[in-house]
Amino acid sequence: MQTVRIALGARTYPIHVGSGLLVRADLVAPVLPHRRAAIVTNDTVAPLYLEPLAAALGAARIESVRIVVPDGEDHKSWQTLNTVFDALVRERCDRQTAIVALGGGVIGDLAGFAAATYQRGVPFVQVPTTLLAQVDSSVGGKTAINHPRGKNMIGAFHQPVLVLADTETLATLPERELRAGLAEVIKHGAIRDAAFFDWLEANVDRLRARDPESLAHAVRRSVEIKAEVVALDERETGLRAVLNFGHTFGHAIETGLGFGTWLHGEAVAAGMAMAADLSARLGLLDSRSADRLRRLLQQAGLPIAGPRLHADRYVELMAIDKKVQAGRARFILLERLGSAVIRSDVPPEALRGTLADATAG
Amino acid sequence: MQTVRIALGARTYPIHVGSGLLVRADLVAPVLPHRRAAIVTNDTVAPLYLEPLAAALGAARIESVRIVVPDGEDHKSWQTLNTVFDALVRERCDRQTAIVALGGGVIGDLAGFAAATYQRGVPFVQVPTTLLAQVDSSVGGKTAINHPRGKNMIGAFHQPVLVLADTETLATLPERELRAGLAEVIKHGAIRDAAFFDWLEANVDRLRARDPESLAHAVRRSVEIKAEVVALDERETGLRAVLNFGHTFGHAIETGLGFGTWLHGEAVAAGMAMAADLSARLGLLDSRSADRLRRLLQQAGLPIAGPRLHADRYVELMAIDKKVQAGRARFILLERLGSAVIRSDVPPEALRGTLADATAG
Repeated sequence: MQTVRIALGARTYPIHVGSGLLVRADLVAPVLPHRRAAIVTNDTVAPLYLEPLAAALGAARIESVRIVVPDGEDHKSWQTLNTVFDALVRERCDRQTAIVALGGGVIGDLAGFAAATYQRGVPFVQVPTTLLAQVDSSVGGKTAINHPRGKNMIGAFHQPVLVLADTETLATLPERELRAGLAEVIKHGAIRDAAFFDWLEANVDRLRARDPESLAHAVRRSVEIKAEVVALDERETGLRAVLNFGHTFGHAIETGLGFGTWLHGEAVAAGMAMAADLSARLGLLDSRSADRLRRLLQQAGLPIAGPRLHADRYVELMAIDKKVQAGRARFILLERLGSAVIRSDVPPEALRGTLADATAG
Repeated sequence: MQTVRIALGARTYPIHVGSGLLVRADLVAPVLPHRRAAIVTNDTVAPLYLEPLAAALGAARIESVRIVVPDGEDHKSWQTLNTVFDALVRERCDRQTAIVALGGGVIGDLAGFAAATYQRGVPFVQVPTTLLAQVDSSVGGKTAINHPRGKNMIGAFHQPVLVLADTETLATLPERELRAGLAEVIKHGAIRDAAFFDWLEANVDRLRARDPESLAHAVRRSVEIKAEVVALDERETGLRAVLNFGHTFGHAIETGLGFGTWLHGEAVAAGMAMAADLSARLGLLDSRSADRLRRLLQQAGLPIAGPRLHADRYVELMAIDKKVQAGRARFILLERLGSAVIRSDVPPEALRGTLADATAG
């Protein structure tokens, strides 16, 4: 087991990465002094991991309530959130009852937002079971639900007290979701760590073959990189925006196609390829580096072009994205592999060029 | 104009109290550098104050979107909150658009929760137009909506950047709401300031006659007392709970009768009388002081007994209240006028006695 400590003053918390952590209730017990938890999961993950987790907690004398919601991004909605609140009230969960998110990013975001707002905030534990959730959702304290007209439009910052990233749970992850998770891993290399990017180029096949040591290294290094960025800028006022590399295009893709058509990681992969194209078009990034990024994404089994929506539709979808400031879209671009920059002066023609050339029917 | 500064480190903000502040956009402009606001109000307040406020903001070159929701506690709901989110998205409000709550406590709580969660948090300005909202909701950063089975069950802490408490708006306040606001004013004296309690006994008739100077004094002193308590305990871990004096019974009354049957202040008044009865029953408070509290509430035109719900129903309603810790109800009691204590060792027989004697059919 390796541990990355997320330094946030009084709210500092550990992320444990390793094999078999799901049943390590000894790691959970110290942060749940009131020994009561509500496990929120979905109907895909529940048959696999709910019983082992609840049993381990029970053996450590932590009583748990089980709340199972339907699987899928469609259910990151206020309707599903309301069913979670209904269950919490029905089970008389109080302010000391921790909410445990067992599942992927949707469950983490939904359960995290429930934890942020139920009785104005209760303790939150994450047990991410997808690669995406392990490398992305476990750091940063972001929680949210979707609005029909925008992803993550309603949410809160709420830090977990503990994250258990059990790499064994990745064994049951569908191939497509493993690839989608690799998109965020690659992103972390691209924006901040050229050596890690090199390592990924050398190890992408091992990662796709789910070699445990390679996965553990990828998760730990991703978490460390994200933690470095977040610790410097907890509330996303500046630097942290680089974590959104690929996301302005990516969110437009997800919203434009309807949530759930593409996986988040797939949309981000295409978004990164589009952002790299735009970076090269502006003379920021050399074309060889843009090619390397595209090739790595391709080797990871990810799309490297957005769907061919109308350019106006892309622009419209990006305009309601949260990263708009005073009506002007900010873009996260690369100046080289391992270094991202934030630009709000992208000429419309360059954007139109990318939307024409870096999308495919 | 008098100003109380709420000291919260980087989030310190001013509460201005006085006449004619609604149109003082010069006070608003410095906290809205992006000069865009969404005013959330209800259909009772809108005809009175929306146009003057929006016009004053417009004259200061602050563009405003207007969001009018139906009046009433029934609308402190997920459904109404969603109509606010819909409008914010439709009007393309971004993270720099401030949300301005123009109205009473329901609007403050609802708009405040929207501000806490829209795009994970936007700046929040309060313009409270009821006595209750001026003395209570403007300090503490609490925002919330109701759940069908519990008041304020879903919410967040989100501090405003500015509060404008315009005492002129109290001129149009219905008599019943003025009285309800006095309940919280009296509460502040009872829990923390015997001299202020004395002043209230001497000035309750002037307050009911809406003497401007008396109202301004009552608002300012209430805000100061609440601010003292909140500054010592921002997240309600301990001391701050004394502000819930009367509220455990009060919330049970509101939930038991259905939200909106009694005004919040009326329920709190009866709740304070019940808590004083319980305090006297336990030998904490002398009976003369309990009588003084009941008499002052009566002079303010407020109820001094809860409705005669079945005792089991009261207990059941109090058990899902947020102030439950580990299954055991905490009560805020008085040891004398001007000093509250928190007790979780109330014998069931004493509680039953209060529920039998301090309620009326």
